[in-house]
Amino acid sequence: MITEDEDRQYAIALDEAERMLGFRLERFLGTADTEPANAADFKRLATVQAFGAAWPRVDHLDTRTRALISITIAATLGVLEPLRGQLRIALNKGVTKEEIVEAFIQIAAYAGAARAFESYGIAAEVFAE
Amino acid sequence: MITEDEDRQYAIALDEAERMLGFRLERFLGTADTEPANAADFKRLATVQAFGAAWPRVDHLDTRTRALISITIAATLGVLEPLRGQLRIALNKGVTKEEIVEAFIQIAAYAGAARAFESYGIAAEVFAE
Amino acid sequence: MITEDEDRQYAIALDEAERMLGFRLERFLGTADTEPANAADFKRLATVQAFGAAWPRVDHLDTRTRALISITIAATLGVLEPLRGQLRIALNKGVTKEEIVEAFIQIAAYAGAARAFESYGIAAEVFAE
Amino acid sequence: MITEDEDRQYAIALDEAERMLGFRLERFLGTADTEPANAADFKRLATVQAFGAAWPRVDHLDTRTRALISITIAATLGVLEPLRGQLRIALNKGVTKEEIVEAFIQIAAYAGAARAFESYGIAAEVFAE
Amino acid sequence: MITEDEDRQYAIALDEAERMLGFRLERFLGTADTEPANAADFKRLATVQAFGAAWPRVDHLDTRTRALISITIAATLGVLEPLRGQLRIALNKGVTKEEIVEAFIQIAAYAGAARAFESYGIAAEVFAE
Amino acid sequence: MITEDEDRQYAIALDEAERMLGFRLERFLGTADTEPANAADFKRLATVQAFGAAWPRVDHLDTRTRALISITIAATLGVLEPLRGQLRIALNKGVTKEEIVEAFIQIAAYAGAARAFESYGIAAEVFAE
Repeated sequence: MITEDEDRQYAIALDEAERMLGFRLERFLGTADTEPANAADFKRLATVQAFGAAWPRVDHLDTRTRALISITIAATLGVLEPLRGQLRIALNKGVTKEEIVEAFIQIAAYAGAARAFESYGIAAEVFAE
Repeated sequence: MITEDEDRQYAIALDEAERMLGFRLERFLGTADTEPANAADFKRLATVQAFGAAWPRVDHLDTRTRALISITIAATLGVLEPLRGQLRIALNKGVTKEEIVEAFIQIAAYAGAARAFESYGIAAEVFAE
Repeated sequence: MITEDEDRQYAIALDEAERMLGFRLERFLGTADTEPANAADFKRLATVQAFGAAWPRVDHLDTRTRALISITIAATLGVLEPLRGQLRIALNKGVTKEEIVEAFIQIAAYAGAARAFESYGIAAEVFAE
Repeated sequence: MITEDEDRQYAIALDEAERMLGFRLERFLGTADTEPANAADFKRLATVQAFGAAWPRVDHLDTRTRALISITIAATLGVLEPLRGQLRIALNKGVTKEEIVEAFIQIAAYAGAARAFESYGIAAEVFAE
Repeated sequence: MITEDEDRQYAIALDEAERMLGFRLERFLGTADTEPANAADFKRLATVQAFGAAWPRVDHLDTRTRALISITIAATLGVLEPLRGQLRIALNKGVTKEEIVEAFIQIAAYAGAARAFESYGIAAEVFAE
Repeated sequence: MITEDEDRQYAIALDEAERMLGFRLERFLGTADTEPANAADFKRLATVQAFGAAWPRVDHLDTRTRALISITIAATLGVLEPLRGQLRIALNKGVTKEEIVEAFIQIAAYAGAARAFESYGIAAEVFAE
């Protein structure tokens, strides 16, 4: 059973996710019959972690820069599906494709041509959507 | 040419793999005509490394906990196909889906939402098998 | 300014951290004069992420197993100072040194001898405390 | 606008890539209409980084050993598509399949069975080409 | 022997490094008697890769954002000494400490509390310089 | 209790380690009073994994190339103390400093300037021994 606090945090995170992505995230967070009940907790907690705490912060860093930073994290880690999501957030919030490409130029220099080329493949796909 | 010692180690590792997975591993370890002869050595050595030394140890840690630890290693590294194998071992040895999801909750907190979401995708697939 | 909700979450996380570590975490979370004001937000958010959401969960996974999983995450990532903290939590919650060593045996097999040896160095230091 | 220097460097890198790969790389470096103009800069810079500076060096290390090292980097990072390219370069430059397998044996020991098995999957595919 | 082209590229990269760091990089790039002669090539090539190609680009991304992205890459990789250099560049180019802390908040969410805490330790040290 | 087989494997691995390193490894593998008894198993298993299976193989790859590959694995992973050991093995087996530097040039290109610079710091220290 989740507490009222947890419920409110999740609602806030989901609303923030919608502002970032341009659509409701719920459709991706449902749990299949084959998943156990606490899978919903995992998705709620990871969503709150991602969207509840960090993204709404706008006092010191604008959302566009935050989106570029998030692309950089995912591309450097080489987590390709989460990177796809970060690229969509960035484009939805007005980051230009040119700015994204510049981030990959910096990634190539510091994290290497191998990781940069692999991750950029996802960017090229999202650019074409 | 492999020595008698190496041959015995491999047989032990393959038997242990069967106990863990519930089926014989040999079908995945054959080498294609296009692979060189020492590819068999690679598969034997990596199999012995994985199944020969660590899994049979039950004095200090039960197999279920060992399976959860192995899922955690693969999920943290982001090696998705080996993670699939670890998830199958865990379920075969009686680890519950709920316990596996709790490991992912811990991975999200410490290794991040990006890696946790990407790796959990494999878990959701294996849960549905 | 942090909200009442955030304040309550932080208090809960700090209490949980004390239960895990055996001492109050606050002494490590102070911000120096040279750190900016939002450094306190970073420390609060990362602490809530680590201690607020995951550790209090005991329905599906006991704290000892959760502690072994957390050691595994930190050792696999090669984050040596956070690993030190995880080792202290584990020992404080009754995980035996033998169990911890078994986790490193599994890490050697799957994540390699190089990472395992480097991370085990921290374990040997914590064992001697 | 790219300078004459940059233009010359790119031409040198593309010629070197051809020597390594056995075919012209240009067909993979075109930019789609949906990619921004500076995507061409990213591809040029990453190509110069990869092929312009390091591969032509033959004074201290022969190209075959350099190719084995490049396979090792990509396999250890787990960047599967760049690894495919490195494997093709190695085979094209006369590295034997046996030598490549031996590199994976070393990777299994030091970087773990999980990463080694995942990356070797790409090698098995390239061996079959 | 390095070519005129390579010599000019290195000079450009070193000047750019000075603009970024606020001091000449040469003092860190000398080679000890115990290093072989081609160590100078390694340092020249890595310096050109880092400072020659990416940092001077200002058409699509301002230097301050590029510096935040570079901090993010180093912090996500967990390369602590290069991270120190990136933090100094950022502060020297006018990135505020508050902005840097916000990048770490994003890193905690997506790359995890473990990596974020470890890397932030370096930031706290550089903030105190 | 370890079996005769395990005992023999360990002896073989320790002899191989001496051939690689030029000194007996035992002095580093002792366990402190504060380490549990199975710590000896961890060290034995990781030593057998590292030195027992892979290094003695000379049919398809000479020891010098194997040493360069092992340096590359450790440098790419960023495991600095194991890298120190690999560098000593390489120099002891006749790999030249020039060859090692060339491996770092390849690492800079593909795995990035950040990792390459950090790992090269260890190489510069070992070159000075």
